[in-house]
Amino acid sequence: MSSTNAGTQLAASLTREITGLEVVTDETAVTAKSRDYWMRSLLQSHIDGAPKAAVLVRPSSATEVAQVLAFADRTRTPVVPYGLGSGVCGAVLASGNEIILDLGRMDRLLEINDESLTARVEPGMRGSDFEDALAARGYTMGHWPQSIGISSVGGWCATRASGQYSTLYGNIEQMLLGCEIAMPSGRLMKLPSVPRSATGPDLKHLFLGSEGTLGVFTELTFRIHPAAAKQVGRAYSMPTLRAGLEALRLILRGGWTPAVTRLYDATEAGRNFAVTADGNPVLLVMSEGAADRVDTEAAAVAGIIAGQGGIDRGEEPVKSWLEHRNHVPSFDKLLSQGLVADTIEVAIGWDRIGDLFETVNQRGAAIDGVFAMSGHVSHCYTQGANIYFTFVAAEADPRAALAIYDRAWRTTIETTVELGGTIAHHHGIGRVRKEWLRSELGEGVALLAALKRAFDPNGIMNPGVLVDA
Amino acid sequence: MSSTNAGTQLAASLTREITGLEVVTDETAVTAKSRDYWMRSLLQSHIDGAPKAAVLVRPSSATEVAQVLAFADRTRTPVVPYGLGSGVCGAVLASGNEIILDLGRMDRLLEINDESLTARVEPGMRGSDFEDALAARGYTMGHWPQSIGISSVGGWCATRASGQYSTLYGNIEQMLLGCEIAMPSGRLMKLPSVPRSATGPDLKHLFLGSEGTLGVFTELTFRIHPAAAKQVGRAYSMPTLRAGLEALRLILRGGWTPAVTRLYDATEAGRNFAVTADGNPVLLVMSEGAADRVDTEAAAVAGIIAGQGGIDRGEEPVKSWLEHRNHVPSFDKLLSQGLVADTIEVAIGWDRIGDLFETVNQRGAAIDGVFAMSGHVSHCYTQGANIYFTFVAAEADPRAALAIYDRAWRTTIETTVELGGTIAHHHGIGRVRKEWLRSELGEGVALLAALKRAFDPNGIMNPGVLVDA
Repeated sequence: MSSTNAGTQLAASLTREITGLEVVTDETAVTAKSRDYWMRSLLQSHIDGAPKAAVLVRPSSATEVAQVLAFADRTRTPVVPYGLGSGVCGAVLASGNEIILDLGRMDRLLEINDESLTARVEPGMRGSDFEDALAARGYTMGHWPQSIGISSVGGWCATRASGQYSTLYGNIEQMLLGCEIAMPSGRLMKLPSVPRSATGPDLKHLFLGSEGTLGVFTELTFRIHPAAAKQVGRAYSMPTLRAGLEALRLILRGGWTPAVTRLYDATEAGRNFAVTADGNPVLLVMSEGAADRVDTEAAAVAGIIAGQGGIDRGEEPVKSWLEHRNHVPSFDKLLSQGLVADTIEVAIGWDRIGDLFETVNQRGAAIDGVFAMSGHVSHCYTQGANIYFTFVAAEADPRAALAIYDRAWRTTIETTVELGGTIAHHHGIGRVRKEWLRSELGEGVALLAALKRAFDPNGIMNPGVLVDA
Repeated sequence: MSSTNAGTQLAASLTREITGLEVVTDETAVTAKSRDYWMRSLLQSHIDGAPKAAVLVRPSSATEVAQVLAFADRTRTPVVPYGLGSGVCGAVLASGNEIILDLGRMDRLLEINDESLTARVEPGMRGSDFEDALAARGYTMGHWPQSIGISSVGGWCATRASGQYSTLYGNIEQMLLGCEIAMPSGRLMKLPSVPRSATGPDLKHLFLGSEGTLGVFTELTFRIHPAAAKQVGRAYSMPTLRAGLEALRLILRGGWTPAVTRLYDATEAGRNFAVTADGNPVLLVMSEGAADRVDTEAAAVAGIIAGQGGIDRGEEPVKSWLEHRNHVPSFDKLLSQGLVADTIEVAIGWDRIGDLFETVNQRGAAIDGVFAMSGHVSHCYTQGANIYFTFVAAEADPRAALAIYDRAWRTTIETTVELGGTIAHHHGIGRVRKEWLRSELGEGVALLAALKRAFDPNGIMNPGVLVDA
C-alpha cells in the first residue's frame, strides 16, 4: 500500500472515530508540517525529497487531543506533536506513517489573573500574539526567544526554551506554573497552578523538554509580570573576550540580573555592530523593571564593566539589536547561495567558559569548508553561561554540505563534553544531539527510557526523538 | 520469628554481603532512628510503644548505599532513608521489618568552586555545619530552614524544603544544580552540574520531594552565593491581616525580593513580639545583598508598606526573630504539659490567600479542644504565598489528642483544597497528607505510581510514604 493510500485510510478512520476532528490529507498541507526548521533535514530533503507524514490532524480542544492519542495508542500509529515548526533540532521529522498533531487551532488566551499574576493559554498560541495580548493588559511574561514570531507557547515548554531576557525573568521552567497534559493513554492530567508546593516530585518537569515523547501540553498557566516601567541599555567594547566573560561573571556574582546580557566575540561584533568597529568583542546589557531598581543596577553594572576595561559605546547598538533581534535567517536562502550554516548552543560554568569558547572557535575554523566559526553569550547565571556558536561554510553540493555540517556539530559538541559543559542550552535534543545524550546523562538515559516505557508503552509518541525506549 | 531475631539475621546477611558496612542492631540506637519528628507518630507511640525497624545501617560512601539498595532489592527488604530525622510528616516510620539507611556518616563538604559558585557535599551533612563551612569561605547557600541545626542537606532535597530566606534565594529546587542518586537497582546515576540545560526533562526534579520512595541522594551540588555585604531588617504593625497581605503582594509584584518576608496574624504577633503589643498583625521584612541594592529595595519596600497603613516598629523585632528563629519546639515537652500542637504549611495565590487565612483560623478555632489556631506567612512569590498554620490544644489523653490532631489537619487541608491552594508548601507529604494527594494532583497520582513501579519494581523504597505503586 502506498503511503498516500495508508494516509487516506488513516484519515478515514480518524474522521469516523473522532467526531468533528479536522483531518487534513492535502499533500502540500501535510508536507509543510512534516519537518521542523532543522538545517540538516532541509539539506537531506535536497537529496531525498521532502518528507511527508501520513496525515495531519488539527484538534480544537484538549479532549480532541486526548482522543487522537487514544486512537493512535490503540492502532499503534506514531504521533508527532507540532506547534509552529520553528524547532531546529529535528524533533519534527516524518518518515511516512505518522499523524502530525498540529496544535495551531488551539491558540486562545483563556484567562489572566490580575491579582495572582498568571495567564492561562492554549499550547498553539503564537508567542508574539501571546506577548501582544499580555502587553495590551499591561503585562509581560518576559520570554523573548528570537523565534517569538514563529514559535508557540506549547513548543517553548516542549523544548525547554529560553528567551533573550532570561537573566532577569528566567527560562521557561521558571515560568510554567501549572498545566494540563494529554497522555498516550488518552487521559488528561491537570497539574495545579500554585505558587509553590511540596506534594511529591514536581511532575511538570517530566514534560518540559520531553519534545513530544511523553505527552502533549493542552493548556499552560504561566507566571506573568507587570510591564517594565523603565528599560536602560548600553553597549561596551571589551578589550578581550575573557574580559567580557569576567565582567558578566562579576555582574551575576554581585546578585544583579540585567534582563539582557550578550557578549559577542570579535567576529560577531564586527558582523553585527559596525558602530563599534574596533575589532574587539562587544558586550550589551539592558536592565528593566521599577525605575529605582533599574537605575541602581545600571550604575553597578557599568562600574563592573569599566573595571574590566570596557569602553562605553552608548545606547545605539542596543537599540539596533532590539530592532533586529527577532530576525530568523532563512536556511533556504542560504542554501540557494551555496552556503550552509547553523547555530549550536551549549552552556558551561564560568571556570571553563573561556577555554570552551576559544577551543570551539579554533577547532571549528579548522574544519575544511568552514569559513567562519564564532559565538556569543546570551544567557547568564551565577554559575556560568551559554555560548551560542555559529558556523558558516561555502558548499553548494548537498552531500558535501552534510558532511561539513556533521563535522561542525561533532566538533562543537564533543569539545563541550570534553570540557564539562552541557550539550544543549535551550534548543533541545531532537535528533541532532541524540547520540551524545549518554555522554552527558550517563545512567540518566536508562531512566529516561524507563519513563518512556512507563508512560508510552506502545511507543507512539514522537518515536526517534530524544530517547529510545 | 520475632522481629529482633529477624533483625539479627538481616544484620548478619548485610555484614556478610557488604564488606565493611556499619550495621547497627542495638535496640536503643535502632529505635532512635525508627521515626522522624512527626507529632502524630509520637502520640501513637504513647499508645502502642515506640516503633522499631529491624536494623540500621550506616554507609560511608555512595557505593555502600548502592550496595545496600541492591541487597534490599534482591531480598525484598524495605529500606527507609534517614537524614537527621527532623521531618514532620511521618516519612520515616518503621513497622518492624525495615533497614533504616542512616546517611549521617556521609557528612563531608567535598568541594567548593570559587569561580562557578558551587558546593559539592554529601547528603548527611548537617545544614548548620554546611552553612558554617560556607561562611568560613565567604559564602552562603541562602537556605535557612528553622530546622537548620537538626536537618541534613540530603533531607532538604528529599522533602523539597524551603528556607526562611526563600523570597531572595529560592527554594531547594532552585539551589540544587546536580546530584548523584543511588537507584533501587543498585546503580548510581550522576546528573551533571551545569548552569542550565535542555537535554530532555530535568531528571533531578523526579527525586526532589520523592521522600526516599524512588532513590537516595548520595551527593549534591548546590548553587552558592557570596555572603551578603549588607542586611537591613524592619518590623511594621499592620492595621489588618489583609493590609499586610496586600503589602506583600505589591512588594513581590514590584519585582522586589527581600530575603525575609513574614506576616504574623494578631495571635502570633502577640505571642512573639511583645514590643508591638497593639493587637495588630506584624510584618517583618529583611533585605540582604550588595549595599546599594539593599538600600534601594529597603526604601521601596518601606514605601509600599506605608501605603498599606503599616506603622514602623523599628529593627528590634527583626533582631529578636533572628536570634530565636532556629528554635524548634519540643513535642515531647508539650505532651508532658498535656498539650498537643502542630504546624501545617500550605500555599495559595494572592487572590484567595486572605479568605484561606481567615477561614482556616475560624474553622480551626471551632474545633473542640483547640484553644489557638493561628498562622503566619513566611515565603512569598509573585503569584502568592504560603501560610504556616499552628494549632494548639489541651488534651492529656493520647487517644483523645489524636482525634483532635486529625480533625485540625483535616479542617486545614480540606479548606485549602476547597479554596484552590496546595496542601503542602514545603514539608512534604509523608504519611500525614497522603490521603489528600489525589485531590490536588488528580491523574498525577497515577503517574507517580507509574514512576514508582518503573524505578522501584519491587517496592522496597520507603513503602507507605507519598504514593502506593
